[in-house]
Amino acid sequence: MNQSNHFNEQHLESSDFITDIVIGMSDGLTVPFALAAGLSGAVASTTIVTTAGIAEIVAGSIAMGLGGYLAGKTEQEHYDSELKREFEEVETVPDKEKEEVREIFAHYGLDSDAQKIIVEALAKDKKKWVDFMMKFELGLEKPDVNRARNSALTIGIAYIVGGIIPLSPYFLVDHASDGLKYSALITILTLFIFGYFKSKLTGQNPVLGALKVTAIGAVAAGAAFFVAKIIGA
Amino acid sequence: MNQSNHFNEQHLESSDFITDIVIGMSDGLTVPFALAAGLSGAVASTTIVTTAGIAEIVAGSIAMGLGGYLAGKTEQEHYDSELKREFEEVETVPDKEKEEVREIFAHYGLDSDAQKIIVEALAKDKKKWVDFMMKFELGLEKPDVNRARNSALTIGIAYIVGGIIPLSPYFLVDHASDGLKYSALITILTLFIFGYFKSKLTGQNPVLGALKVTAIGAVAAGAAFFVAKIIGA
Repeated sequence: MNQSNHFNEQHLESSDFITDIVIGMSDGLTVPFALAAGLSGAVASTTIVTTAGIAEIVAGSIAMGLGGYLAGKTEQEHYDSELKREFEEVETVPDKEKEEVREIFAHYGLDSDAQKIIVEALAKDKKKWVDFMMKFELGLEKPDVNRARNSALTIGIAYIVGGIIPLSPYFLVDHASDGLKYSALITILTLFIFGYFKSKLTGQNPVLGALKVTAIGAVAAGAAFFVAKIIGA
Repeated sequence: MNQSNHFNEQHLESSDFITDIVIGMSDGLTVPFALAAGLSGAVASTTIVTTAGIAEIVAGSIAMGLGGYLAGKTEQEHYDSELKREFEEVETVPDKEKEEVREIFAHYGLDSDAQKIIVEALAKDKKKWVDFMMKFELGLEKPDVNRARNSALTIGIAYIVGGIIPLSPYFLVDHASDGLKYSALITILTLFIFGYFKSKLTGQNPVLGALKVTAIGAVAAGAAFFVAKIIGA
């Protein structure tokens, strides 16, 4: 990991894993909860609700996990190709690259003497110069490939675990409408708890954050319920 | 990943709207497609498939749209609170902040004379100094609030439009298994086309990118189909 990654991530480094769990779990809680609620407004059979819910969990976790993994690999390829291009540019058009460095610092009010000193100091070491251009001109951080893979896997699994929570009551009752009552109760409670910890992790007001996360779940479930009731009737 | 995503979006500014459409649409295509496919493996009734599909589209678009909007507002609040703190720090502990600037440039091989020139030049204008710290120490860009709202709305609507595509055949046939055949045909074709344009927008190999996007949809739908078939039986 280079220093620039260190700058950005140092305040979350220890909790990346927990953050991924919370992201996957709150998404997993929201959509399967709302889907199950929606179906409960249209059908009485809990078997249909649980089958649809499990199909959604499988689909959602794969789309989220595999999608995230491939996006991470694409980001890596993008970084590598930009890195190659920057190396070529400092070789072939160093004056243009020097001008770009000057422009960055002119933006922050440095005079041309100061700009010149920075440019000449950077130009001494091409590797560091390219590192500088990647971060300060293109705003690209070196992606951590293992992190992308682990993150995708964690989010995918957390989505499954999260999705099982709103679905579980439907396995235990006979009528979908009863399932919905218990599902709403435990899911709203769980969403609130997750919203609380998610907001704490990102340094936001935990209660306000918890209310937001819970509101998204409630609005999504309510809307799905009424739309499905109208269509299914 | 968010950080670099944010940066990446900058040099795509003219196509933000199109990018949002493609993001929402390819997600909308994938999950409702897989859910409908999964249910088709377990039930014969197209009404159940379409009801569940519509409930999912409602739930997914709200979770994605509203979730994205609130995440954008949270990002704004986070930026504002960090900005306030940086302003306080350059007022109260300027030497510590100067040391942080020196460390950034020491990392790129600049000697202490060059570091000193940059530090003193930056320190002349507190607003620009804080801007510099926000971007290069914390890696934070000023979020565009309107962009977050518009983006959330575009992605939410694109999710709905995308979700209707895999679902539409089920409205036109009597048996879910027939619906699945046509749904798979048009969805895989549409995923390929979207994957192609999505990859072009991000500067990746379009055919390879199209195959990846299509593969995620196919794997998600296949997995949902077999899991639902086992459970529903």
